[in-house]
Amino acid sequence: MPIPVSDPDDPRIEAYRAVRERDLAGREHRFVAEGEVVLRVLSKQFRFRIESLLLAESRLESLRDILDGLSPEIPVYTANRTVMDAIVGFPIHRGILAVAHRAPLPPVEELLARMPENALVVGLVSLANHDNVGGIFRNAAAFGAEAVLLDRETCDPLYRKAIRVSVGGALVVPYTRAASADAMVKALQAASFDVMALSPSGKEILSQVRPSRRTALLLGAEGPGLPPALLAQTRTVSIPMSGGFDSLNVATTSGIALHHLASAAARPAL
Amino acid sequence: MPIPVSDPDDPRIEAYRAVRERDLAGREHRFVAEGEVVLRVLSKQFRFRIESLLLAESRLESLRDILDGLSPEIPVYTANRTVMDAIVGFPIHRGILAVAHRAPLPPVEELLARMPENALVVGLVSLANHDNVGGIFRNAAAFGAEAVLLDRETCDPLYRKAIRVSVGGALVVPYTRAASADAMVKALQAASFDVMALSPSGKEILSQVRPSRRTALLLGAEGPGLPPALLAQTRTVSIPMSGGFDSLNVATTSGIALHHLASAAARPAL
Repeated sequence: MPIPVSDPDDPRIEAYRAVRERDLAGREHRFVAEGEVVLRVLSKQFRFRIESLLLAESRLESLRDILDGLSPEIPVYTANRTVMDAIVGFPIHRGILAVAHRAPLPPVEELLARMPENALVVGLVSLANHDNVGGIFRNAAAFGAEAVLLDRETCDPLYRKAIRVSVGGALVVPYTRAASADAMVKALQAASFDVMALSPSGKEILSQVRPSRRTALLLGAEGPGLPPALLAQTRTVSIPMSGGFDSLNVATTSGIALHHLASAAARPAL
Repeated sequence: MPIPVSDPDDPRIEAYRAVRERDLAGREHRFVAEGEVVLRVLSKQFRFRIESLLLAESRLESLRDILDGLSPEIPVYTANRTVMDAIVGFPIHRGILAVAHRAPLPPVEELLARMPENALVVGLVSLANHDNVGGIFRNAAAFGAEAVLLDRETCDPLYRKAIRVSVGGALVVPYTRAASADAMVKALQAASFDVMALSPSGKEILSQVRPSRRTALLLGAEGPGLPPALLAQTRTVSIPMSGGFDSLNVATTSGIALHHLASAAARPAL
């Protein structure tokens, strides 16, 4: 049963106050999900426990099926647009917010131990842009990657905007953090992954690469790219481009590489 | 020789006033380019005539090589950050703006008549998002597409943000508008292009498609996709995705498809 809120200072909706400022400060064991598409994905995941919802009254009807499927213990707060905007701190056009609990991340080795015999894993090194990380999770979900590994410098996939850009992919594909890019590569190799690093200086050409039973794809930031020490430990793969034009966006690159590896894996071996 | 401007109301820098409001209103035969990377691309194009530059004083030194290469008739205005922000109407961190002239667009048939024997062309239908159109031009440039055709509903590739997202690709790849998506397809077919339309319901699978000598790739908006009447006139191609996950971003899709077609064309035929 929805709980109407008419006072923006109501202590029950404390978690939704000043969303952008909290985004920056971080929420420790919580995250905020936004919009109908993301809420639909979130409501089907077991990894995340929804703590509450805050909805514009006008959105209640179209979300009826999701609300009916939620545990009745989850409070669903509703407010009119003026009150909701006052709580959140900016005009929240989508009118749909959820606060959910995030479990602690498993060690890399533990996540890799759960991988199936045939697995495609993505590793991200120093990717600080939420749009790019969101876009990569979207592609990882679209092409069925089993997991994403992040180094410490890569930003939070559960940041509100990253989830939104991922169209919920950040909630679908399991991920965890490695202590360093080096530790990530070592853990992948120990788990029998063939580690490919995408780099403009890569020795092999993507379109000619055949995936191994277990393949990991490493991506670094546009500009600096992956560190040479890391390239030295891996198979390096490049995407040939037209005369001197600036490199591809890293999220697009992930889509190109995952598509190639997923479709090459689906075809019979040469 | 740079011309210092200290009065934000100086009539000489009229074209730079209130950039965002002008972006919305349109500039008819002009467009604004922003940032060093885009300016470097613009300065090498013959299709566009730079009318003037407005630079933050602090950026002059790093742009010396570009400025030395410009025709001495092009005025280069400089201002301190405060004055520049006041002119432009918002904090313009990049501190680099150019106003350039855009020539009238050629008829589709005329642009296609200039295409080489082997050509890859992209056609966009109802793409209203500047980030997506910018991203597609970036990919078109990266994979050497010869031209981009737009229907009337597709947004302006020379909108400031679209150029920026394209990393200058919107200035590199020739483009023009067709009267309609239908007219676009007819012109492509009349010019012996094999027209492929990307669609989740496509009959062929992208990774198994071989490009023809002249190939055109049609992309529609995420969500509605390409209209059925258009799909009925073309080869339809899909990108298989993992169980029920939301479709790819259209710019990412363009990257995947262009990469496949460009690398399949580079390989000897089977």
